[in-house]
Amino acid sequence: MKRGRRPGAADTRAAILAAARARFAANGYTGTKIRAVAADAGVDPALVHYFFGTKEELFAAVMTLPFRPTEILGPLLDEGLDGLGERLVRRLLGIWDATGNREPLVAVVRSVTGHDAAAAMMREFVEREIVGRLARALPAPDAGLRASLVASQVVGLLLARYVLGLAPLANADQDSVVAAVGPTLQHYLTGELG
Amino acid sequence: MKRGRRPGAADTRAAILAAARARFAANGYTGTKIRAVAADAGVDPALVHYFFGTKEELFAAVMTLPFRPTEILGPLLDEGLDGLGERLVRRLLGIWDATGNREPLVAVVRSVTGHDAAAAMMREFVEREIVGRLARALPAPDAGLRASLVASQVVGLLLARYVLGLAPLANADQDSVVAAVGPTLQHYLTGELG
Repeated sequence: MKRGRRPGAADTRAAILAAARARFAANGYTGTKIRAVAADAGVDPALVHYFFGTKEELFAAVMTLPFRPTEILGPLLDEGLDGLGERLVRRLLGIWDATGNREPLVAVVRSVTGHDAAAAMMREFVEREIVGRLARALPAPDAGLRASLVASQVVGLLLARYVLGLAPLANADQDSVVAAVGPTLQHYLTGELG
Repeated sequence: MKRGRRPGAADTRAAILAAARARFAANGYTGTKIRAVAADAGVDPALVHYFFGTKEELFAAVMTLPFRPTEILGPLLDEGLDGLGERLVRRLLGIWDATGNREPLVAVVRSVTGHDAAAAMMREFVEREIVGRLARALPAPDAGLRASLVASQVVGLLLARYVLGLAPLANADQDSVVAAVGPTLQHYLTGELG
Protein backbone atom coordinates (compact mmCIF):
# COMPACT_ATOMS: atom_id res chain seq x y z
CA MET A 1 0.00 0.00 0.00
CA LYS A 2 1.33 3.41 -0.93
CA ARG A 3 2.15 5.80 1.87
CA GLY A 4 -0.34 8.62 2.46
CA ARG A 5 -3.16 7.04 0.51
CA ARG A 6 -6.12 5.59 2.34
CA PRO A 7 -7.15 2.03 1.38
CA GLY A 8 -10.51 3.30 0.15
CA ALA A 9 -8.90 5.73 -2.27
CA ALA A 10 -6.53 3.11 -3.66
CA ASP A 11 -9.44 0.71 -4.20
CA THR A 12 -11.53 3.39 -5.90
CA ARG A 13 -8.63 4.40 -8.13
CA ALA A 14 -8.04 0.76 -9.12
CA ALA A 15 -11.75 0.24 -9.83
CA ILE A 16 -11.84 3.32 -12.07
CA LEU A 17 -8.70 2.21 -13.93
CA ALA A 18 -10.13 -1.27 -14.50
CA ALA A 19 -13.41 0.18 -15.76
CA ALA A 20 -11.56 2.62 -18.04
CA ARG A 21 -9.34 -0.14 -19.44
CA ALA A 22 -12.39 -2.22 -20.31
CA ARG A 23 -14.26 0.74 -21.84
CA PHE A 24 -11.31 1.92 -23.95
CA ALA A 25 -10.80 -1.64 -25.17
CA ALA A 26 -14.49 -2.13 -26.02
CA ASN A 27 -15.42 1.32 -27.35
CA GLY A 28 -12.10 2.89 -28.34
CA TYR A 29 -10.71 6.23 -27.25
CA THR A 30 -13.30 8.46 -28.89
CA GLY A 31 -16.26 6.26 -27.96
CA THR A 32 -15.41 6.16 -24.26
CA LYS A 33 -17.23 8.59 -21.97
CA ILE A 34 -16.00 9.45 -18.47
CA ARG A 35 -19.59 9.09 -17.30
CA ALA A 36 -19.78 5.47 -18.51
CA VAL A 37 -16.46 4.65 -16.84
CA ALA A 38 -17.76 6.14 -13.60
CA ALA A 39 -20.99 4.12 -13.80
CA ASP A 40 -19.03 0.88 -14.42
CA ALA A 41 -16.80 1.63 -11.43
CA GLY A 42 -19.81 2.54 -9.28
CA VAL A 43 -18.58 6.07 -8.54
CA ASP A 44 -19.56 9.63 -9.37
CA PRO A 45 -18.02 11.08 -12.59
CA ALA A 46 -16.56 13.90 -10.46
CA LEU A 47 -14.43 11.30 -8.70
CA VAL A 48 -12.98 10.10 -12.01
CA HIS A 49 -11.96 13.69 -12.81
CA TYR A 50 -10.66 14.13 -9.27
CA PHE A 51 -8.36 11.10 -9.57
CA PHE A 52 -7.37 11.30 -13.23
CA GLY A 53 -8.24 14.72 -14.68
CA THR A 54 -9.20 14.68 -18.37
CA LYS A 55 -10.04 11.71 -20.57
CA GLU A 56 -6.57 12.03 -22.11
CA GLU A 57 -4.99 11.76 -18.67
CA LEU A 58 -7.15 8.75 -17.86
CA PHE A 59 -6.01 7.12 -21.10
CA ALA A 60 -2.36 7.87 -20.29
CA ALA A 61 -2.88 6.16 -16.91
CA VAL A 62 -4.50 3.10 -18.53
CA MET A 63 -1.66 2.84 -21.07
CA THR A 64 0.84 3.45 -18.21
CA LEU A 65 2.43 6.29 -20.17
CA PRO A 66 4.95 8.08 -17.94
CA PHE A 67 3.72 11.46 -19.33
CA ARG A 68 0.88 13.01 -21.29
CA PRO A 69 1.76 13.34 -24.98
CA THR A 70 -0.08 16.65 -25.37
CA GLU A 71 1.90 18.03 -22.43
CA ILE A 72 4.95 17.59 -24.65
CA LEU A 73 3.39 18.67 -27.94
CA GLY A 74 1.53 21.76 -26.70
CA PRO A 75 4.53 23.82 -25.58
CA LEU A 76 6.51 22.79 -28.67
CA LEU A 77 3.70 23.99 -30.95
CA ASP A 78 3.42 27.24 -28.98
CA GLU A 79 6.94 28.10 -30.13
CA GLY A 80 5.82 28.01 -33.77
CA LEU A 81 6.59 25.84 -36.79
CA ASP A 82 10.09 27.23 -37.37
CA GLY A 83 12.58 24.63 -36.17
CA LEU A 84 9.77 22.49 -34.75
CA GLY A 85 11.23 19.32 -36.34
CA GLU A 86 14.49 19.69 -34.48
CA ARG A 87 12.86 20.70 -31.17
CA LEU A 88 10.52 17.71 -31.39
CA VAL A 89 13.33 15.17 -31.88
CA ARG A 90 15.40 16.73 -29.11
CA ARG A 91 12.48 16.66 -26.66
CA LEU A 92 11.60 13.04 -27.47
CA LEU A 93 15.18 11.84 -27.12
CA GLY A 94 15.37 13.70 -23.81
CA ILE A 95 12.33 11.83 -22.53
CA TRP A 96 13.38 8.37 -23.75
CA ASP A 97 16.99 8.77 -22.65
CA ALA A 98 15.90 9.87 -19.16
CA THR A 99 16.36 7.34 -16.37
CA GLY A 100 13.24 5.39 -15.50
CA ASN A 101 11.26 6.23 -18.64
CA ARG A 102 12.65 3.68 -21.06
CA GLU A 103 11.15 0.52 -19.58
CA PRO A 104 7.52 1.70 -19.28
CA LEU A 105 7.69 3.23 -22.76
CA VAL A 106 8.99 0.02 -24.30
CA ALA A 107 6.16 -1.80 -22.52
CA VAL A 108 3.65 0.55 -24.15
CA VAL A 109 5.13 -0.04 -27.60
CA ARG A 110 4.96 -3.79 -27.07
CA SER A 111 1.39 -3.69 -25.90
CA VAL A 112 0.37 -1.52 -28.86
CA THR A 113 2.08 -3.59 -31.55
CA GLY A 114 1.15 -6.87 -29.90
CA HIS A 115 -2.62 -6.61 -29.50
CA ASP A 116 -5.32 -5.51 -31.89
CA ALA A 117 -7.35 -3.87 -29.14
CA ALA A 118 -4.37 -1.91 -27.79
CA ALA A 119 -3.35 -0.94 -31.34
CA ALA A 120 -6.87 0.32 -32.09
CA MET A 121 -7.06 2.33 -28.84
CA MET A 122 -3.66 3.85 -29.41
CA ARG A 123 -4.34 4.59 -33.09
CA GLU A 124 -7.48 6.52 -32.21
CA PHE A 125 -5.69 8.36 -29.44
CA VAL A 126 -2.70 9.23 -31.64
CA GLU A 127 -4.94 10.24 -34.56
CA ARG A 128 -7.00 12.52 -32.37
CA GLU A 129 -4.67 13.95 -29.74
CA ILE A 130 -1.28 13.88 -31.45
CA VAL A 131 -1.55 13.70 -35.25
CA GLY A 132 -4.83 15.65 -35.18
CA ARG A 133 -3.42 18.35 -32.94
CA LEU A 134 -0.25 18.62 -34.99
CA ALA A 135 -2.28 18.76 -38.20
CA ARG A 136 -4.42 21.61 -36.90
CA ALA A 137 -1.23 23.64 -36.40
CA LEU A 138 -0.24 23.19 -40.06
CA PRO A 139 -1.59 25.49 -42.76
CA ALA A 140 -1.32 23.10 -45.70
CA PRO A 141 -4.34 21.31 -47.19
CA ASP A 142 -2.43 18.03 -46.78
CA ALA A 143 -1.84 18.74 -43.07
CA GLY A 144 -3.15 15.30 -42.04
CA LEU A 145 -0.76 13.41 -44.30
CA ARG A 146 2.12 15.62 -43.13
CA ALA A 147 1.34 15.00 -39.48
CA SER A 148 1.09 11.24 -39.98
CA LEU A 149 4.42 11.25 -41.86
CA VAL A 150 5.96 12.96 -38.83
CA ALA A 151 4.44 10.25 -36.66
CA SER A 152 5.87 7.53 -38.91
CA GLN A 153 9.44 8.84 -38.57
CA VAL A 154 9.05 9.42 -34.83
CA VAL A 155 7.66 5.92 -34.24
CA GLY A 156 10.40 4.39 -36.40
CA LEU A 157 13.15 6.34 -34.66
CA LEU A 158 11.94 5.35 -31.18
CA LEU A 159 11.46 1.74 -32.23
CA ALA A 160 14.86 1.43 -33.94
CA ARG A 161 16.81 3.26 -31.24
CA TYR A 162 15.09 2.06 -28.08
CA VAL A 163 13.06 -1.09 -28.71
CA LEU A 164 15.15 -2.89 -31.34
CA GLY A 165 18.40 -1.21 -30.28
CA LEU A 166 19.61 -0.99 -33.89
CA ALA A 167 23.28 0.06 -34.02
CA PRO A 168 24.74 2.58 -34.66
CA LEU A 169 21.51 4.60 -34.29
CA ALA A 170 20.98 3.14 -30.81
CA ASN A 171 24.37 4.41 -29.62
CA ALA A 172 24.56 7.70 -31.52
CA ASP A 173 24.66 10.82 -29.33
CA GLN A 174 21.54 12.98 -29.14
CA ASP A 175 23.04 15.85 -31.17
CA SER A 176 23.82 13.61 -34.15
CA VAL A 177 20.32 12.16 -34.14
CA VAL A 178 18.74 15.60 -33.83
CA ALA A 179 20.89 16.90 -36.70
CA ALA A 180 19.96 13.92 -38.89
CA VAL A 181 16.25 13.48 -38.12
CA GLY A 182 15.21 17.06 -37.28
CA PRO A 183 15.31 18.20 -40.95
CA THR A 184 13.22 15.16 -41.97
CA LEU A 185 10.43 16.14 -39.57
CA GLN A 186 10.72 19.78 -40.65
CA HIS A 187 10.44 18.66 -44.28
CA TYR A 188 7.27 16.73 -43.50
CA LEU A 189 5.88 19.69 -41.54
CA THR A 190 6.58 22.59 -43.88
CA GLY A 191 8.60 21.38 -46.90
CA GLU A 192 7.66 20.57 -50.49
CA LEU A 193 6.23 17.03 -50.46
CA GLY A 194 6.86 16.46 -54.20
CA MET B 1 0.32 -32.98 -45.42
CA LYS B 2 1.49 -31.02 -48.46
CA ARG B 3 1.11 -32.65 -51.88
CA GLY B 4 4.27 -34.11 -53.40
CA ARG B 5 6.26 -34.17 -50.18
CA ARG B 6 6.98 -37.48 -48.50
CA PRO B 7 6.19 -37.71 -44.75
CA GLY B 8 9.86 -38.22 -43.98
CA ALA B 9 10.81 -34.98 -45.72
CA ALA B 10 8.11 -33.00 -43.88
CA ASP B 11 9.30 -34.38 -40.54
CA THR B 12 12.94 -33.62 -41.34
CA ARG B 13 12.06 -30.10 -42.45
CA ALA B 14 10.08 -29.50 -39.24
CA ALA B 15 12.91 -30.88 -37.09
CA ILE B 16 15.43 -28.59 -38.79
CA LEU B 17 13.14 -25.58 -38.36
CA ALA B 18 12.62 -26.34 -34.67
CA ALA B 19 16.37 -26.75 -34.12
CA ALA B 20 17.07 -23.52 -36.02
CA ARG B 21 14.45 -21.59 -34.03
CA ALA B 22 16.03 -22.75 -30.75
CA ARG B 23 19.58 -21.97 -31.93
CA PHE B 24 18.72 -18.51 -33.27
CA ALA B 25 16.93 -17.74 -30.00
CA ALA B 26 19.82 -18.98 -27.84
CA ASN B 27 22.83 -17.83 -29.86
CA GLY B 28 21.48 -15.07 -32.09
CA TYR B 29 21.76 -14.78 -35.85
CA THR B 30 25.53 -14.39 -36.10
CA GLY B 31 26.29 -17.01 -33.46
CA THR B 32 24.21 -19.71 -35.12
CA LYS B 33 26.00 -22.21 -37.34
CA ILE B 34 24.21 -24.41 -39.88
CA ARG B 35 26.33 -27.30 -38.66
CA ALA B 36 25.04 -26.91 -35.07
CA VAL B 37 21.44 -26.74 -36.30
CA ALA B 38 22.02 -29.92 -38.29
CA ALA B 39 23.50 -31.72 -35.27
CA ASP B 40 20.55 -30.66 -33.08
CA ALA B 41 18.11 -31.92 -35.71
CA GLY B 42 20.08 -35.16 -36.13
CA VAL B 43 20.71 -34.63 -39.85
CA ASP B 44 23.63 -33.89 -42.15
CA PRO B 45 24.40 -30.16 -42.73
CA ALA B 46 23.97 -30.77 -46.45
CA LEU B 47 20.33 -31.57 -45.79
CA VAL B 48 19.82 -28.21 -44.07
CA HIS B 49 21.21 -26.48 -47.17
CA TYR B 50 19.11 -28.74 -49.40
CA PHE B 51 15.88 -27.76 -47.63
CA PHE B 52 16.58 -24.12 -46.78
CA GLY B 53 19.58 -22.82 -48.74
CA THR B 54 21.70 -20.24 -46.93
CA LYS B 55 21.60 -19.24 -43.27
CA GLU B 56 19.70 -16.12 -44.29
CA GLU B 57 17.05 -18.25 -46.01
CA LEU B 58 16.82 -20.50 -42.95
CA PHE B 59 16.32 -17.41 -40.78
CA ALA B 60 13.61 -16.10 -43.13
CA ALA B 61 11.85 -19.47 -42.79
CA VAL B 62 12.08 -19.40 -38.98
CA MET B 63 10.73 -15.82 -38.88
CA THR B 64 8.08 -16.86 -41.43
CA LEU B 65 9.07 -13.95 -43.68
CA PRO B 66 7.23 -14.24 -47.00
CA PHE B 67 10.44 -13.20 -48.84
CA ARG B 68 14.18 -12.80 -48.30
CA PRO B 69 15.07 -9.20 -47.49
CA THR B 70 18.36 -9.34 -49.40
CA GLU B 71 16.45 -10.57 -52.45
CA ILE B 72 14.75 -7.17 -52.40
CA LEU B 73 17.74 -5.07 -51.45
CA GLY B 74 20.31 -6.63 -53.81
CA PRO B 75 18.66 -5.70 -57.13
CA LEU B 76 17.80 -2.21 -55.83
CA LEU B 77 21.44 -1.60 -54.89
CA ASP B 78 22.59 -2.92 -58.27
CA GLU B 79 20.81 0.02 -59.90
CA GLY B 80 23.01 2.46 -57.97
CA LEU B 81 22.45 5.08 -55.28
CA ASP B 82 20.73 7.61 -57.57
CA GLY B 83 17.03 7.52 -56.81
CA LEU B 84 17.49 4.54 -54.47
CA GLY B 85 15.34 6.16 -51.76
CA GLU B 86 12.33 6.36 -54.03
CA ARG B 87 12.84 2.89 -55.53
CA LEU B 88 13.14 1.39 -52.05
CA VAL B 89 9.86 2.90 -50.80
CA ARG B 90 8.05 1.88 -53.98
CA ARG B 91 9.30 -1.70 -53.74
CA LEU B 92 8.38 -2.02 -50.05
CA LEU B 93 4.88 -0.61 -50.54
CA GLY B 94 4.45 -3.00 -53.45
CA ILE B 95 5.30 -5.95 -51.21
CA TRP B 96 3.17 -4.89 -48.24
CA ASP B 97 0.20 -3.86 -50.38
CA ALA B 98 0.26 -7.20 -52.25
CA THR B 99 -2.46 -9.68 -51.38
CA GLY B 100 -1.44 -12.30 -48.85
CA ASN B 101 1.71 -10.58 -47.59
CA ARG B 102 0.23 -8.20 -45.06
CA GLU B 103 -0.84 -10.70 -42.41
CA PRO B 104 2.41 -12.68 -42.12
CA LEU B 105 4.42 -9.44 -42.12
CA VAL B 106 2.33 -7.94 -39.33
CA ALA B 107 2.85 -11.18 -37.40
CA VAL B 108 6.62 -10.80 -37.79
CA VAL B 109 6.50 -7.20 -36.54
CA ARG B 110 4.47 -8.28 -33.51
CA SER B 111 6.80 -11.11 -32.69
CA VAL B 112 9.83 -8.84 -32.98
CA THR B 113 8.46 -5.99 -30.88
CA GLY B 114 6.83 -8.36 -28.38
CA HIS B 115 9.70 -10.60 -27.31
CA ASP B 116 13.24 -9.84 -26.28
CA ALA B 117 14.61 -12.97 -27.93
CA ALA B 118 12.86 -12.25 -31.23
CA ALA B 119 13.93 -8.61 -31.08
CA ALA B 120 17.56 -9.61 -30.50
CA MET B 121 17.52 -12.13 -33.38
CA MET B 122 15.94 -9.66 -35.74
CA ARG B 123 18.24 -6.83 -34.69
CA GLU B 124 21.30 -8.91 -35.44
CA PHE B 125 19.86 -10.04 -38.72
CA VAL B 126 18.87 -6.53 -39.77
CA GLU B 127 22.22 -5.07 -38.64
CA ARG B 128 24.15 -7.65 -40.59
CA GLU B 129 22.12 -8.45 -43.70
CA ILE B 130 20.16 -5.26 -44.30
CA VAL B 131 21.71 -2.23 -42.58
CA GLY B 132 25.20 -3.70 -42.98
CA ARG B 133 24.68 -4.48 -46.64
CA LEU B 134 23.19 -1.06 -47.32
CA ALA B 135 26.04 0.61 -45.40
CA ARG B 136 28.65 -1.19 -47.49
CA ALA B 137 27.10 0.36 -50.60
CA LEU B 138 27.52 3.89 -49.21
CA PRO B 139 30.79 5.78 -49.56
CA ALA B 140 30.45 8.02 -46.50
CA PRO B 141 32.39 7.41 -43.28
CA ASP B 142 29.06 7.60 -41.42
CA ALA B 143 27.54 4.91 -43.66
CA GLY B 144 26.37 2.84 -40.69
CA LEU B 145 24.41 5.70 -39.15
CA ARG B 146 22.93 6.56 -42.56
CA ALA B 147 21.79 2.99 -43.15
CA SER B 148 20.21 2.74 -39.70
CA LEU B 149 18.40 6.05 -40.25
CA VAL B 150 16.97 4.56 -43.46
CA ALA B 151 15.88 1.54 -41.43
CA SER B 152 14.21 3.78 -38.82
CA GLN B 153 12.06 5.55 -41.41
CA VAL B 154 11.23 2.30 -43.20
CA VAL B 155 10.24 0.57 -39.96
CA GLY B 156 8.17 3.58 -38.89
CA LEU B 157 6.43 3.84 -42.24
CA LEU B 158 5.51 0.15 -42.29
CA LEU B 159 4.38 0.25 -38.68
CA ALA B 160 2.28 3.42 -39.04
CA ARG B 161 0.72 2.44 -42.38
CA TYR B 162 0.20 -1.30 -41.93
CA VAL B 163 0.34 -2.28 -38.26
CA LEU B 164 -1.19 0.75 -36.53
CA GLY B 165 -3.20 1.80 -39.60
CA LEU B 166 -2.61 5.49 -38.87
CA ALA B 167 -4.81 7.67 -41.10
CA PRO B 168 -4.35 9.36 -43.52
CA LEU B 169 -1.00 7.65 -44.14
CA ALA B 170 -2.68 4.24 -44.03
CA ASN B 171 -5.05 5.19 -46.86
CA ALA B 172 -2.74 7.38 -48.96
CA ASP B 173 -2.03 6.06 -52.47
CA GLN B 174 1.41 4.58 -53.17
CA ASP B 175 2.53 7.50 -55.36
CA SER B 176 1.91 10.08 -52.63
CA VAL B 177 3.81 8.01 -50.08
CA VAL B 178 6.70 7.43 -52.48
CA ALA B 179 6.85 11.17 -53.28
CA ALA B 180 6.84 12.08 -49.58
CA VAL B 181 9.13 9.43 -48.10
CA GLY B 182 11.48 8.72 -51.03
CA PRO B 183 13.38 12.02 -50.59
CA THR B 184 13.79 11.32 -46.86
CA LEU B 185 15.50 8.00 -47.53
CA GLN B 186 17.60 9.59 -50.30
CA HIS B 187 18.62 12.33 -47.85
CA TYR B 188 19.73 9.72 -45.31
CA LEU B 189 21.57 7.79 -48.02
CA THR B 190 23.46 10.54 -49.82
CA GLY B 191 22.45 13.97 -48.40
CA GLU B 192 24.13 16.35 -45.97
CA LEU B 193 23.35 15.07 -42.47
CA GLY B 194 24.01 18.46 -40.80
